[in-house]
Amino acid sequence: MEEGTKVTLLGKWESPFGMRPRIALNIKHVNYAFIEENLDAKSELLLKSNPINKQIPVLIHGDKLVCESLIIVQYIDDVWTSGPSILPSDPYDRAVALFWAAYIDEKWVSSMKGISTAQGEEAKKAVVDQVVQGFVLLEEAFVKCSKGKSFFGGDQIGYVDIAFGCFLGWIRVAEKFNDIKLLDQAKTPQLVKWAERFCQHPAVNGVMPESEELAEFAKILTVKMRGANPPK
Amino acid sequence: MEEGTKVTLLGKWESPFGMRPRIALNIKHVNYAFIEENLDAKSELLLKSNPINKQIPVLIHGDKLVCESLIIVQYIDDVWTSGPSILPSDPYDRAVALFWAAYIDEKWVSSMKGISTAQGEEAKKAVVDQVVQGFVLLEEAFVKCSKGKSFFGGDQIGYVDIAFGCFLGWIRVAEKFNDIKLLDQAKTPQLVKWAERFCQHPAVNGVMPESEELAEFAKILTVKMRGANPPK
Repeated sequence: MEEGTKVTLLGKWESPFGMRPRIALNIKHVNYAFIEENLDAKSELLLKSNPINKQIPVLIHGDKLVCESLIIVQYIDDVWTSGPSILPSDPYDRAVALFWAAYIDEKWVSSMKGISTAQGEEAKKAVVDQVVQGFVLLEEAFVKCSKGKSFFGGDQIGYVDIAFGCFLGWIRVAEKFNDIKLLDQAKTPQLVKWAERFCQHPAVNGVMPESEELAEFAKILTVKMRGANPPK
Repeated sequence: MEEGTKVTLLGKWESPFGMRPRIALNIKHVNYAFIEENLDAKSELLLKSNPINKQIPVLIHGDKLVCESLIIVQYIDDVWTSGPSILPSDPYDRAVALFWAAYIDEKWVSSMKGISTAQGEEAKKAVVDQVVQGFVLLEEAFVKCSKGKSFFGGDQIGYVDIAFGCFLGWIRVAEKFNDIKLLDQAKTPQLVKWAERFCQHPAVNGVMPESEELAEFAKILTVKMRGANPPK
């Protein structure tokens, strides 16, 4: 099934979630077609491929449809066993990786989103503190998971690297737009170095959006959102 | 590691999430100590074992701490390989199981919670419709996943059975309290039969709370919640 079966990914260049399967496919050296979706006018293919959530990313592998970014990453890891493993093979290390990925998606992401929606300086400061507090926890997790090596996954980029690293572009944009420091050398020195290594990794550097391009996109998005919800 | 290492579970008898690891441990015939937590006065053991989320369930396996109900179920499946498998071994079947479990926790559970908080008949009806619509999707998923057999997992109780089945007690309580039918023979005949089989399964029937006992608990909870948020 794995070799020679066509692989297509429905995604968006700026989406952190859409980036996850792309990094996983790169790690496994899988060739794939990337279809850029327009979420304002979702394609028939997207609606048919992910009828429950109608969201990107979707992996189309032959006649198989796989939805939800982290589930796709697991599927890629399970199917293409020729490349390095993404999830740890040890049951406990695997549980720890799943835990931190869930923490990122269920807790940290909502704090991060709050930076752009917080009203007033005090509220924004509280949200920024939450985000940074999340980084401090992730720094501790990095120290434990990496065991002195380069990535959460050890020598190789693993599941938590992908789950967290995909947000680095947006973290930089949030820092620039709000004139704040989120990933801070003083508070999370290990994560700062990890972020550099992650972005330079060959499986990542072709899919990580350029800061300028992402900042431009974010500006347009902000104007669009203000149009939909004008200040009262 | 697996044999002879002490297994302890921190949980609550009435918690659907707490029930998941108990069913998984029963499937694998693992002896474990169950510690009933009081969430109004969380134990030092709970706070120390799950410092990030401070929630049950937590599995303590020797010196290893595993948090988050579905991650614990995966861990149990990975560690105790002597009993039947809980997650499918085929990568695609596994991705599908993970998808439906995520659907239940991320989408369906919030509709279900909405039944008790919806204000007014119209709002309640809308929420009930959402819950039932979720069941219709899960009925379709059951038909595909079970392939004509008894459970989502085929001949054996699997990951989706555990993820979904743990709510059956609370579904019955919601039906009784609101005088409504959620799991309906006319709309989801396969799920109605599945629910009966699931509750009678030896790995489940000792941990599924009695309807009467759960209804009594729900009454006390409702009074407590009204005390905290009196009607204006």
